[in-house]
Amino acid sequence: NIIARGREDTNTNMRLKLPITCFILEIILIILFGVLVEYDKETDARKWHHSNHSEYDNDFYYRYPSFQDVHVMIFIGFGFLMTFLQRYGFSSVGFNFLIAALALQWATLMQGFFHGMHGGKIHVGVESMINADFCTGSVLISFGAVLGKTSPVQLLVMAVFEVTLFAVNEFILLSLLGTKDAGGSMTIHTFGAYFGLMVARVLYRPNLHKSKHKNSSVYHSDMFAMIGTLYLWMFWPSFNSAITAHGDDQHRTALNTYYSLAACTLSTYAMSALTAHDGKLDMVHIQNAALAGGVAAGTAGEMMLTPFGSMIVGFLAGIISVLGYKYLSPILESKLKIQDTCGVHNLHGMPGVMGAIVGAVTASLATKEIYGDGLIQIIFCLGFIMKLPIYGAPSDASCFEDSIYWEVIESVINWYPVLSIEMTVHKYNYGISCKKTEFFLFVWFLISF
Amino acid sequence: NIIARGREDTNTNMRLKLPITCFILEIILIILFGVLVEYDKETDARKWHHSNHSEYDNDFYYRYPSFQDVHVMIFIGFGFLMTFLQRYGFSSVGFNFLIAALALQWATLMQGFFHGMHGGKIHVGVESMINADFCTGSVLISFGAVLGKTSPVQLLVMAVFEVTLFAVNEFILLSLLGTKDAGGSMTIHTFGAYFGLMVARVLYRPNLHKSKHKNSSVYHSDMFAMIGTLYLWMFWPSFNSAITAHGDDQHRTALNTYYSLAACTLSTYAMSALTAHDGKLDMVHIQNAALAGGVAAGTAGEMMLTPFGSMIVGFLAGIISVLGYKYLSPILESKLKIQDTCGVHNLHGMPGVMGAIVGAVTASLATKEIYGDGLIQIIFCLGFIMKLPIYGAPSDASCFEDSIYWEVIESVINWYPVLSIEMTVHKYNYGISCKKTEFFLFVWFLISF
Amino acid sequence: NIIARGREDTNTNMRLKLPITCFILEIILIILFGVLVEYDKETDARKWHHSNHSEYDNDFYYRYPSFQDVHVMIFIGFGFLMTFLQRYGFSSVGFNFLIAALALQWATLMQGFFHGMHGGKIHVGVESMINADFCTGSVLISFGAVLGKTSPVQLLVMAVFEVTLFAVNEFILLSLLGTKDAGGSMTIHTFGAYFGLMVARVLYRPNLHKSKHKNSSVYHSDMFAMIGTLYLWMFWPSFNSAITAHGDDQHRTALNTYYSLAACTLSTYAMSALTAHDGKLDMVHIQNAALAGGVAAGTAGEMMLTPFGSMIVGFLAGIISVLGYKYLSPILESKLKIQDTCGVHNLHGMPGVMGAIVGAVTASLATKEIYGDGLIQIIFCLGFIMKLPIYGAPSDASCFEDSIYWEVIESVINWYPVLSIEMTVHKYNYGISCKKTEFFLFVWFLISF
Repeated sequence: NIIARGREDTNTNMRLKLPITCFILEIILIILFGVLVEYDKETDARKWHHSNHSEYDNDFYYRYPSFQDVHVMIFIGFGFLMTFLQRYGFSSVGFNFLIAALALQWATLMQGFFHGMHGGKIHVGVESMINADFCTGSVLISFGAVLGKTSPVQLLVMAVFEVTLFAVNEFILLSLLGTKDAGGSMTIHTFGAYFGLMVARVLYRPNLHKSKHKNSSVYHSDMFAMIGTLYLWMFWPSFNSAITAHGDDQHRTALNTYYSLAACTLSTYAMSALTAHDGKLDMVHIQNAALAGGVAAGTAGEMMLTPFGSMIVGFLAGIISVLGYKYLSPILESKLKIQDTCGVHNLHGMPGVMGAIVGAVTASLATKEIYGDGLIQIIFCLGFIMKLPIYGAPSDASCFEDSIYWEVIESVINWYPVLSIEMTVHKYNYGISCKKTEFFLFVWFLISF
Repeated sequence: NIIARGREDTNTNMRLKLPITCFILEIILIILFGVLVEYDKETDARKWHHSNHSEYDNDFYYRYPSFQDVHVMIFIGFGFLMTFLQRYGFSSVGFNFLIAALALQWATLMQGFFHGMHGGKIHVGVESMINADFCTGSVLISFGAVLGKTSPVQLLVMAVFEVTLFAVNEFILLSLLGTKDAGGSMTIHTFGAYFGLMVARVLYRPNLHKSKHKNSSVYHSDMFAMIGTLYLWMFWPSFNSAITAHGDDQHRTALNTYYSLAACTLSTYAMSALTAHDGKLDMVHIQNAALAGGVAAGTAGEMMLTPFGSMIVGFLAGIISVLGYKYLSPILESKLKIQDTCGVHNLHGMPGVMGAIVGAVTASLATKEIYGDGLIQIIFCLGFIMKLPIYGAPSDASCFEDSIYWEVIESVINWYPVLSIEMTVHKYNYGISCKKTEFFLFVWFLISF
Repeated sequence: NIIARGREDTNTNMRLKLPITCFILEIILIILFGVLVEYDKETDARKWHHSNHSEYDNDFYYRYPSFQDVHVMIFIGFGFLMTFLQRYGFSSVGFNFLIAALALQWATLMQGFFHGMHGGKIHVGVESMINADFCTGSVLISFGAVLGKTSPVQLLVMAVFEVTLFAVNEFILLSLLGTKDAGGSMTIHTFGAYFGLMVARVLYRPNLHKSKHKNSSVYHSDMFAMIGTLYLWMFWPSFNSAITAHGDDQHRTALNTYYSLAACTLSTYAMSALTAHDGKLDMVHIQNAALAGGVAAGTAGEMMLTPFGSMIVGFLAGIISVLGYKYLSPILESKLKIQDTCGVHNLHGMPGVMGAIVGAVTASLATKEIYGDGLIQIIFCLGFIMKLPIYGAPSDASCFEDSIYWEVIESVINWYPVLSIEMTVHKYNYGISCKKTEFFLFVWFLISF
């Protein structure tokens, strides 16, 4: 079987690396959860019944439906959005699943630690679940930048570092600077995008063109990616409103995001046709840029932005994002040596910055002053850690390829068993008969003389 | 690349037509929203906190989960239901996405205008979002009737007209006649279906048989379509109950729809096997007719229909719908010259009428009297507007084909790069060697004599 | 068309068998619903408005979002999880749809009967809808064990019997023994799995190897199956919490299940790489074993298990489940003659027992004493009923094949019409020219001498 065997590489063998990493991380997590985590007053039977509440006062009923929408965005939305690559569907969905499952546990601990402990304990409930999923979203954005070029172990290491830095960054922005950022334009999207871009920079592969033919989509893979796109698009109002205040805040945030996304979709289609040489729509734009309206409405969505303001924000975000895919991404790769597989700079980076500016110009400016270059230096350090040759990363020629990490049965052989066998048999018959004929003829030729 | 180049047609080039249409429409929308739209009392921070409410009294908590289910039906449900065509997946999902994003904005304005302005302003909140999505559903039903035969610009024009007429029709039915139609058997399904059928009639193509080979499904496209079917089926209880009164009404409507759909599914499977010459189930029936129970329970679902009544309604709707696909659709095409790609007459038309009869015989009869033929005349006018040769509609031979509006990379070439190249090389080798052999033999033959 | 015609078998013709079965069952259901079922006090307009409630006190607002999540698990989750087979996608999703639609109606009656009638009437509302979906889940688990080897009529018969026994078993466990099992580790998963395994045992096919080449996945079918997996994974917190008590109970159950699943995912990936000879991840494990954490947290999830306890449970469930797929399934087939297509023993059987032990050791022990072997004998009887040669079950060589029950248009022919025709033509040209050449040469050879 020609393709499935692929390019075997003992380095990419995960037989021991992956189990050891997973087991160690999970056992550490379980121990820390045992020591540090306890139910909050809405999930603990004693505490809840102790106080005098109506049952519908439990935060579960305010937030759980939004949590489930966010959960779908994390696992289906991000997971399937990245399946656009022709030979990387298992890895896109599968590694997304793995690192999200790790990140949400680690995020519970890190965010609990920075959001304030209660008598030495981290309290968990539906709000901590949403926050953990948010932090996970940030890791998955970074995953998009390095998609196809890393091993699962590398991704787990990245997730652990990124979640930790995410919690620090979130603490600085929300607690120290008092910024409001319910939908995470800054904390989730901008952070996740630039983190991912810096990692991609450090992991720059000059010879990536060797797997260029796999770094593109096919008809069906684009259809699967649209599942991801649409779930992200539909549930983005829930994402932005999930942790805003009860009542009008949640209501207004969902409404604003809804209009921002609708306007963004129209400008995305317009720009996609306009920037194509033959007026044909490009699936890359539709799958990604149409979501920029949600990112850009992240910070200001909970404010009295009005539907009018939201639509302007979304409209501009779509235009910027398509232009980014068309003109900026090639420059990022050629000049800055950043190979951004999913174009997260165009979907999360620029619209995230735009959202932060729309939402809170002052806070955004103050940020730079506080961070200095500390954060960037830390991320570069992580990059070099990730570059160590111990993780079983794929070679340049086997990037964007499932079969190095997954058991892949080839469809062309199995889908049409009768037909393909028949073809093969005939082909070889022809081949052999032709060659026999030629040989025969040659012999005859010799004899003749 | 043989197929992807397809039949190039300068007329279908969307380079300027689509961007200009999108930009003009969106800018008009933004201006109108700026002038006319404001938050309602549940989404406006001042108004909400001014009055004395509990937070859980906000309509958001009563309706937002249902809204999200409806939203999934509009974008995933309708979008993927139409991906059954083998070469029209991008357009089905992508144009569905585009026209839905436009329609929900335009519907907010039109419905706000007819539902009553508040001091010259249209109030928006979760209820207006649900209503806008409902109106969008109607446009998408009409899209189903003309699927594969229109350009995106044509669809945008259709959406603007249809949304406007929808709001007028809804105003007449609900406000003037006082009909109750929470699930929209009449306002959404019957209206959307007959609107679409009339447009399809005007756009009749006598030579559509030229693209007949593309007007069918393949194995994978039917699997994608089942995603759409199941989401519509599962969330139909939310669709019908989304804007009914709080409390027992929402609860009862969801329950009735649930039983109607379950009974409909059994009669659909039964009829599909019964009407096939060899007893084999037909995916067209399963994908569509199994949903007729939701349509038929739209009007009466909120009433005290009882599960017993709901099941009878669903059971009959499934039977009628399969019979429609089997016997009526061919007649519609041959006799009435209506080429109904998705069979919306069988899924939304007849079950919608049935639902209206079940729900409100009197109102349904009164309707005809009021409308006269005015509505039909308006729709025919629209049809002729849509028939103008300015929109870049596909030629008869390039209907049901993605590659005229989308960048399509062919899967057969890219999926199995090694194999296909290898095959090609061998094939040509054989070809050449055979031809060489023949030539050689011919020469030899000549020489021999 | 070579494949589509497949192996025609008059026995598998469903032209009359399926419609008769569906119509009889549905008419019986409608009559029984008419006689026995009425709205409960939360869905009946008079009863609800009679008592003095706030509208948000209606159980609809507590449970409907969870119900919709469960509904998605039943129809998309179970349906798509089983599409991993290369040639059985229509049947997996389609028969899942059919038997679920039947089972939820029959379950409403059976559970209503055993849960206590109200003045001779069965009361229905959102809680009965959730319970009916749960019971349906159990039938779909059993379907997984016999997937590909049964006719739809056989499955409908199985569903009727299994739902009835499910209600009896649930009555014994929950009402007589007073066990708590909100997430159904025992009532749903363990019952469904062992019921399915016993049916699979009775339906043992010694010559199943004849369709061995179809009993495996291909690239795209594994992608579709991941849709099922992820929806089950994401919504399992809703599944386990859907019918627990209002307030902290629902909240805590969702939280515990969330952590159990996250830990389970990490141990699943670790074990999948560890048990593979080349360290490559196996899609079978990821698709199934990663869900074992939800099954195992079913009984104890509502208790004060703590996130720490949940993670330990999930972690172990993942390990057990992968080991089951790797080492136990082959033994079950070779020694016990149980051909478990989906490996439900590993996903639902063992983790279900584990969940029951974690949740209630005592109850679990008491169970055996009460049942004796009665239940097993009844299931074996059903097995023999299902083995009667009247249902049109597929022959050994046509198992795992859609085309015996569905109209299947072959993709290879239709997807690439131009290319495939071209290839065919060329191929035959070569073939003919080669053969002509050979013949010519042979004649020449003869003449020459």
